[in-house]
Amino acid sequence: MSEANQKPTDNQPVPKAVVNRLSLYLRELQHLVSEGSETISSGALGQRLGCSDAQVRKDLAYFGQFGYPGIGYRCAELVDAIRKILGTQFVWPVVMVGVGNLGRALLGYKGFAKQGFHIVAALDSNRSVVGTTVEDVHVDHIDELDRVMKEKRVRLAMIAVPAPAAQQVADRMVRAGVEGIVNFAPVTISIPDHVSLIGVDLAIELEQIAFAVVNRNHTR
Amino acid sequence: MSEANQKPTDNQPVPKAVVNRLSLYLRELQHLVSEGSETISSGALGQRLGCSDAQVRKDLAYFGQFGYPGIGYRCAELVDAIRKILGTQFVWPVVMVGVGNLGRALLGYKGFAKQGFHIVAALDSNRSVVGTTVEDVHVDHIDELDRVMKEKRVRLAMIAVPAPAAQQVADRMVRAGVEGIVNFAPVTISIPDHVSLIGVDLAIELEQIAFAVVNRNHTR
Repeated sequence: MSEANQKPTDNQPVPKAVVNRLSLYLRELQHLVSEGSETISSGALGQRLGCSDAQVRKDLAYFGQFGYPGIGYRCAELVDAIRKILGTQFVWPVVMVGVGNLGRALLGYKGFAKQGFHIVAALDSNRSVVGTTVEDVHVDHIDELDRVMKEKRVRLAMIAVPAPAAQQVADRMVRAGVEGIVNFAPVTISIPDHVSLIGVDLAIELEQIAFAVVNRNHTR
Repeated sequence: MSEANQKPTDNQPVPKAVVNRLSLYLRELQHLVSEGSETISSGALGQRLGCSDAQVRKDLAYFGQFGYPGIGYRCAELVDAIRKILGTQFVWPVVMVGVGNLGRALLGYKGFAKQGFHIVAALDSNRSVVGTTVEDVHVDHIDELDRVMKEKRVRLAMIAVPAPAAQQVADRMVRAGVEGIVNFAPVTISIPDHVSLIGVDLAIELEQIAFAVVNRNHTR
């Protein structure tokens, strides 16, 4: 087995859908490890996610060769390899802007730390929450964004402010040198090309479930 | 153009990834309509989502024929067609179980109503919130789940309780006749085959952003 490359092989561009499936493979593999499974075939891994063995092998082939003939994948080893590929083998410090209900929920969300993300600071413009501590995270005023990001060497940020404030917050993050933003506000924001952005749309899961209910037996 | 079929043509099973992209096409098209755009080509639509024109055409071909030669897609018409396919042309009444920070955030999330989901009831086991109104939604005791779901003809439910309580809540929903569940608790739950389930993992978006930051210029 070759070493997991942190960069895609041959500088080949990797489709976003492939990167997205890496996260799904990772979750299944982490679940398998926690259940005590040591190995899994590409077919069994694909089946757990509703895709073919060929798809699994093709997706992973962007990054190296991870399977063993006659064995399949070693779960714990592939977990480590995918974390290296995703860049989450180390902990990322993250800032959260917006400490309303959604921000509080995200600050308390146990899933982030488990995957390598540590929310090191929270910021808000509301003087009634500034200075308080929420889920063990100190809340600073939004005007401190630049200082906090530099001090804590933050490259990633989450936005959980009301929709009308999201663009302005993103602009401040960009000026403070952010490299990646996850936007939970239900609004489209614009950022320069050198910054990565993902907008989270919480209604998508409901749509997918509605389709599944309406079309039962028609999905695989 | 043929009528949008609510069921996939020829009872062909539709890959989950295709259904997922339908939601993404829908968002882009809704955005285009709000900007005043009347038509868009498959190439331009694909480009906005990082996929090819062929992918867009192939995905939509599962459900019918929607393009016009020399014109492309009519945005508003395709919005309506996709909503019919997803089953969101009508409003779905939804119940929310769990009125902690995440539940409150979800009750206040404007994105659901816009996409055809109306949270008609919230339930919790905590007597301090039962009887209150959160974001215009009355909070009932979880023991009322069965009655509330029947009265309001609810088929879809969201879980936003702490992880240790999620399975028990799902079991109660299943007994009350739920058909689809979106689970926001960071834990895997089991449900019978006749109920659809999606687990939302909020850390996935952070992972995707981490990869984009680490591999800048290597994704397309």
